[in-house]
Amino acid sequence: MLLHGRHSRTIWPEGDTVAVLDQRVLPHRVQTLVLRSVHDAVRAIADMAVRGAPLIGVTGAYGLALQTRADAGDAALQRAARELEAARPTAVNLAWAVRRALARLLPLPPAGRADAAWAIAARLADDDVDVNRRIGEHGAALLRLLAERRRGEPLQILTHCNAGWLATVDWGTALAPIYRAHAQRLPLHVWVDETRPRNQGASLTAFELREQGVPHTVIADNAGGHLMQRGRVDAVIVGCDRVSARGDVANKIGTYLKALAAHDCGVPFYVAMPSSTLDCTLDDGFDIPIEERPAREVTHLTGRDAGGAIVQVQLVPDGTSAANPAFDVTPARLVTALISECGVVPATAEAIAALAAGEVAT
Amino acid sequence: MLLHGRHSRTIWPEGDTVAVLDQRVLPHRVQTLVLRSVHDAVRAIADMAVRGAPLIGVTGAYGLALQTRADAGDAALQRAARELEAARPTAVNLAWAVRRALARLLPLPPAGRADAAWAIAARLADDDVDVNRRIGEHGAALLRLLAERRRGEPLQILTHCNAGWLATVDWGTALAPIYRAHAQRLPLHVWVDETRPRNQGASLTAFELREQGVPHTVIADNAGGHLMQRGRVDAVIVGCDRVSARGDVANKIGTYLKALAAHDCGVPFYVAMPSSTLDCTLDDGFDIPIEERPAREVTHLTGRDAGGAIVQVQLVPDGTSAANPAFDVTPARLVTALISECGVVPATAEAIAALAAGEVAT
Repeated sequence: MLLHGRHSRTIWPEGDTVAVLDQRVLPHRVQTLVLRSVHDAVRAIADMAVRGAPLIGVTGAYGLALQTRADAGDAALQRAARELEAARPTAVNLAWAVRRALARLLPLPPAGRADAAWAIAARLADDDVDVNRRIGEHGAALLRLLAERRRGEPLQILTHCNAGWLATVDWGTALAPIYRAHAQRLPLHVWVDETRPRNQGASLTAFELREQGVPHTVIADNAGGHLMQRGRVDAVIVGCDRVSARGDVANKIGTYLKALAAHDCGVPFYVAMPSSTLDCTLDDGFDIPIEERPAREVTHLTGRDAGGAIVQVQLVPDGTSAANPAFDVTPARLVTALISECGVVPATAEAIAALAAGEVAT
Repeated sequence: MLLHGRHSRTIWPEGDTVAVLDQRVLPHRVQTLVLRSVHDAVRAIADMAVRGAPLIGVTGAYGLALQTRADAGDAALQRAARELEAARPTAVNLAWAVRRALARLLPLPPAGRADAAWAIAARLADDDVDVNRRIGEHGAALLRLLAERRRGEPLQILTHCNAGWLATVDWGTALAPIYRAHAQRLPLHVWVDETRPRNQGASLTAFELREQGVPHTVIADNAGGHLMQRGRVDAVIVGCDRVSARGDVANKIGTYLKALAAHDCGVPFYVAMPSSTLDCTLDDGFDIPIEERPAREVTHLTGRDAGGAIVQVQLVPDGTSAANPAFDVTPARLVTALISECGVVPATAEAIAALAAGEVAT
């Protein structure tokens, strides 16, 4: 997507290193972070310099590639894979990408692994772009259908967290249909949940929608239900970190609340889902591990002060404890449909099994 | 309640002026604001130096009293009443208190109005304390019943915004049952929604629970649904700004989302409601006016920096627009019961009519 008017991906190889946009300082600064080792990649994932299920998957594959420069032996690669997978537990894409890359590297002679690892990571990045472009096309067709009822008034879409370009290599998942429909001149407006505690909506989604010129308004996470009650939301589209075999969706904390409101208000609730986010080994979404992140993400907040400096402020009285579950699980019954790269499918065990078996027509 | 170990109200007369705790700088500073005129009172209410439906009602009555010192004529009092009522539109207590005081003052000879106005405001403050004490007793009895299932484990209560001591003259509404039960040595723990965008939970509820020694944990507003899904919440208790004749509840934005989650998870959802918060002139809660507050409350946030200074930081990209509806309406069907000063009653037209007619036994 566009960054200051020029096309940019969120991750790219640079010689023996990997460059990523540092998402911790957006929207206030556009800054590149260079990863030189697998440890840099692990740290970038754990500290959320890169985040978003698809992007951390690709970062994981590049992490293995970085490892091959230092030591491409079996033990070193297996250790690197373990460290990468452990960096964040909820999104399945990370484990999926790392295991897939590892399974292709281990049969090769060690001398050939470095070139192969870099090629695998690059291919995974390209695949991600292609998958998201297709999600965008299927989703845009859906949005055009919904827009028919609006008779030329902008279609009102609510999204939670950031499942955009910055959560992927390009396009995004939940935002891909919006970018595609916007490019097709469908009038639309996006309600952006700020997404506490890390404010990915206020900082990242607002940033990228602005860079692409898509009309949007930031709201507190508390406001979405009220807007839906008043008929001011035509559809909700979110991304996902892991989807179970029966269609339960783990996504950013607070997604479940928006799904409940959408259900109560008769607003369709869509989940944009690359099939790499499916975990067919789990049936019940409540078995998905939920990451508990540091309390400080709740008690302190980073922003830009009047002088332009990026500062952290404390919100609570000294010594206040906080809990910080990073994801919740939306039961399949609240999901209107999944928007996958293979088409729009219901969140049912049957449809998901067909998708996983490659039986859904693209 | 206790403030640094000493009993304190949130508002009190001081000679010809009125002193209030300035809630804009809590929890970082405890600072008193002196109101010298009705304009000071209007500004304190509009800027949320004082907030909370019961407290702004009492502040409104003291505002009229301040006006009587300058000019106690009919026109001056009526103008003051209009300005006070317009300071915030959603909570009915403000209009209720101001109109009640005005109706008692206008029949008096102007020379006698000042003394009467101060006495009326003081009486209203005392009544608020008494009402909340009674809400606390009725609510604590309810909590003791719920606690029987916990077999000695702390009862887990979730609350949204601040409906505590700081939202009233003393005790609070939603927190009164918690304070009463805590004083009765019932083991309990409070999940405190931070309550974006103004963070009344993280700053005010956490502050006052800490001052009273009640165990609590701050969470992002997004987290409550997840905690309820996992069986970690035994009851939700919130306050209210206006309740319609059929039991629809206007309260801080985001309340509706918590009510939906409570309903979905089988968690009881209680609304602590002084009967002054009833508006029997409205049947449908969706007719309650919803205040739209400044966008800057969403795009910027105030906290304490590492050096101890209170600073404001920007969260969004430059030029980002934001919407800021301050309240939402929870339909009566999602409310398990109302905890009033006259007892615990269902959120139905019949029960509310009986309450309004004074037919509920205290």
